[in-house]
Amino acid sequence: MKKKISIFGSTGSIGLNTLKIVSHLKNQFEVVFLTCNKNARLLIEQIKIFKPKAVCVVDKNAYEEVKNQINLSDVKVLFGREGLLELAKRNDVDIMLNALVGASGMEPTLCALESGVDVALANKESLVMAGDIITKAMQKTGASIFPVDSEHSAIWQIIKGEKIDDIQRIILTGSGGPFRTRSIETFKNITVEEALNHPNWDMGNKITIDSATMMNKGLEVIEAYWLFGLEPNNISIVIHPQSIIHSMIEMKDGSIKAQMGVPDMKIPIQYALTHPEHVQASWERLDFFNCGDLTFEEPDLEKFPLIKVAYKALKLSGTASAALNLANDYSVYRFLNQEIEFNNISIINESALDDHPWIQNPDLEDINNLNDWIKNYVNNY
Amino acid sequence: MKKKISIFGSTGSIGLNTLKIVSHLKNQFEVVFLTCNKNARLLIEQIKIFKPKAVCVVDKNAYEEVKNQINLSDVKVLFGREGLLELAKRNDVDIMLNALVGASGMEPTLCALESGVDVALANKESLVMAGDIITKAMQKTGASIFPVDSEHSAIWQIIKGEKIDDIQRIILTGSGGPFRTRSIETFKNITVEEALNHPNWDMGNKITIDSATMMNKGLEVIEAYWLFGLEPNNISIVIHPQSIIHSMIEMKDGSIKAQMGVPDMKIPIQYALTHPEHVQASWERLDFFNCGDLTFEEPDLEKFPLIKVAYKALKLSGTASAALNLANDYSVYRFLNQEIEFNNISIINESALDDHPWIQNPDLEDINNLNDWIKNYVNNY
Repeated sequence: MKKKISIFGSTGSIGLNTLKIVSHLKNQFEVVFLTCNKNARLLIEQIKIFKPKAVCVVDKNAYEEVKNQINLSDVKVLFGREGLLELAKRNDVDIMLNALVGASGMEPTLCALESGVDVALANKESLVMAGDIITKAMQKTGASIFPVDSEHSAIWQIIKGEKIDDIQRIILTGSGGPFRTRSIETFKNITVEEALNHPNWDMGNKITIDSATMMNKGLEVIEAYWLFGLEPNNISIVIHPQSIIHSMIEMKDGSIKAQMGVPDMKIPIQYALTHPEHVQASWERLDFFNCGDLTFEEPDLEKFPLIKVAYKALKLSGTASAALNLANDYSVYRFLNQEIEFNNISIINESALDDHPWIQNPDLEDINNLNDWIKNYVNNY
Repeated sequence: MKKKISIFGSTGSIGLNTLKIVSHLKNQFEVVFLTCNKNARLLIEQIKIFKPKAVCVVDKNAYEEVKNQINLSDVKVLFGREGLLELAKRNDVDIMLNALVGASGMEPTLCALESGVDVALANKESLVMAGDIITKAMQKTGASIFPVDSEHSAIWQIIKGEKIDDIQRIILTGSGGPFRTRSIETFKNITVEEALNHPNWDMGNKITIDSATMMNKGLEVIEAYWLFGLEPNNISIVIHPQSIIHSMIEMKDGSIKAQMGVPDMKIPIQYALTHPEHVQASWERLDFFNCGDLTFEEPDLEKFPLIKVAYKALKLSGTASAALNLANDYSVYRFLNQEIEFNNISIINESALDDHPWIQNPDLEDINNLNDWIKNYVNNY
C-alpha cells in the first residue's frame, strides 16, 4: 500500500525536492494534494505528472489560470486560504509535507495534526507560532511531527535510541550566513541581492534573509525546544561555515553525536518520509577528501542580535515567540521590498516583541488577532 | 543491586581508567576480580582500595610479591595463565572488562562469553584472532560484547536504532599516528622512542606501536567486521589527525552519523559499562571554539602497507587474521626490544600471513597451535 502524501507549497524549493523524492520512491508514495501560492505554470506541470486528487491555489489570478488550463474532471481545484485549510483538514492522507512559507504555515500544520495526520514539517514557524497548541493537538490525536529542517532532522536522526534525560545539550550548527565575516559597520548598506546570496544552501527568499540576519537560527532554537523538550539553556549554537555538520547533541558523559552530509535538503526530506529507514538514494555523497576543513566559531551576538532576541522570546513564553516570528515575517517582507534597511529587521522585530500585548496561554484566535496587531505595527514602524 | 565487574589488565592504561570510572560510579559497580601481568605494587594498591574477591597475577615474581604483601584471608590470589582463565570462566560476575594486551586476551574473552558473562572489550585482538568462534559462543549463551575501542564505541553509539541493511559503510577514523607526515624514505630509521610518541592518545606500548604502523587501524577494520556485520568493502578508513571524530557511519541515503569528543578513553569505557545510558561525568568536554579545524585525508597505503594486509587477511578468512595478528604481536615485541627495524614489522607480518598453514574453520586448538608456529616464524625471521 502506497502512503498518501499531500505537499503544501509544492512549487517552492522544498516542494520541488519533495516531488523529486516522491518520483524516486514512486512505489511507496502517492501524491494526493498539492498547493501553491501563485506559480500556476509549475503547478499545472505537477498536476500532469503526479495526478493529485485536489490542489489549492492561494492567489486569485493563479487560481483562475490553473482552473482554465486543466481538465477539472481529473482534479479538484480549490482557492485561497480557505481552500488551503480545507485540504489541511482532510484525513484521507497519511502524511502532509508542509513547506509553506512563514507564519501562514502554522494553521495547516495544526489542522493536519488535529485530523490525526502526521506532518513532515519544513515550516519552522509552525512551532514558533504555536508550539504549545500544536503539542497539545499531537497529544490528543497521536499524530507526529517529522522535522525536515536540516538541523532538526540531524538531531532527530542522532537522538534515536537516546533518552532526553541523558542529553546535556543540543548544539545547532549554522553557517553564519553570507555576512559572517562582513564588518558590522557596513551592515546598514546590505542590499537585498547581497542578503539573498547564501554561501551553502539554495533556499527560498524568506529563509535566505532569515539566514542573513541569523533570525533563522533563533527560530530553530525555539523549534528545537518544542520538538525535543530541552530547556532553552541546553540549546546552543555553534557557527560552522561549511554546513557539513548539520547539528549535534552532547550527552551527559561528554559524548557528542553529530549528523553530517552534503548541504542538500533532499536527505532530510527523504528521511522525514522514510524514517526510521534510510532508503538508498543516488545523489551526491560527502567526499571527505575534498570537503575542506571543518571549522567552528562562536556566534557573533553583536552582529546578529536576533539570536539573543529569540532566546528572550522563548524564555518569555506565551505569545512572545509568535510575536517575534510575525514581526520577522513582515519586516523581512519590507526588506525584500526595499522599504527598510537590513539593520531595521532586528530593531523592528525586538520592538514588536517588547511592545506586543502579551498573553500567557494564547489560543488560535489570540494568535490570529496578534497577527493583525503585528502586521499593523511593523508596517507603520 | 550493584553490577559485579571483573577487570582483566587492571594496571594498564584502560584498567586504570576503568577503576577511575568504577570509583565515580561506586553505587552501581562492585569490583570482584582484578588481574595484572607484573605490576605487583599497583595491584596491591588496587586490592586495598577496591577489595576484590580474587586477583590473578601472571608473572611469577609479581605473584609472590602480591601474595606476601596482602592479607590472604581477604582476597584469593591466583597465578599465571591458568589462574587468568580460571577467573575468566567464573559466572558469578556480571561484566568482564577485558583490557589485556595482544592475542593473549582472546581466550579470556571467549571463556567469559561461554560462561554467559558480557564482555566490555578493549582487547581488539580477541575478535581478530577468533571472530567466528567468539560469535558462535555469543549466539549460544546470549552474552554480548560491548566495544571499548574509541572507534567501535563510536560506531556502536551512532548505530543505535539503525538497521544494518540501511548502512552503506562504516568509516573508521584514525589519527594517522606519529608518522603521518614523515617521509617514507626515513621510515627505516624510526626509533622505538619516536614510535611510542603518539600525538593524541595516551595508551599502552603495544597499541601505540600499532598506531605508528597503522596495523591498529587494520585490526580495527577486522574487529568492526565481526562486531557490526558489514562486508570488508563497506568498511572504510579516513585519516583525521585531530582525533575529535571517533568514527562514522554513512547511511544508504547519504546521511552520515558521527560520534565526537575529546580523545579520552574514559568516555567509551564508561559507555560500555552504563549503556544504553550516557551517565553524567565531570571530565573535560570538547570545546568547539578551541579544538582547531577538523581535517581529513586518505590513508597512505604505501607508508602504511599493513592496512592493505589487514583487508587481505579479512578477505582470506579462516586463520588469516589470527596469523597476521599473532605475527604482529611478536614483531612489535621484537621492535620494542630493538631487534628489528620499524619497516620490518610490516614485512614480517605479511610474510607470516602468506606462509602460515591456513585453515578454513579453525578451532581454539588450531589457533593455539598457530601461535606456536607464528612465534617460531617471527623469532627466526
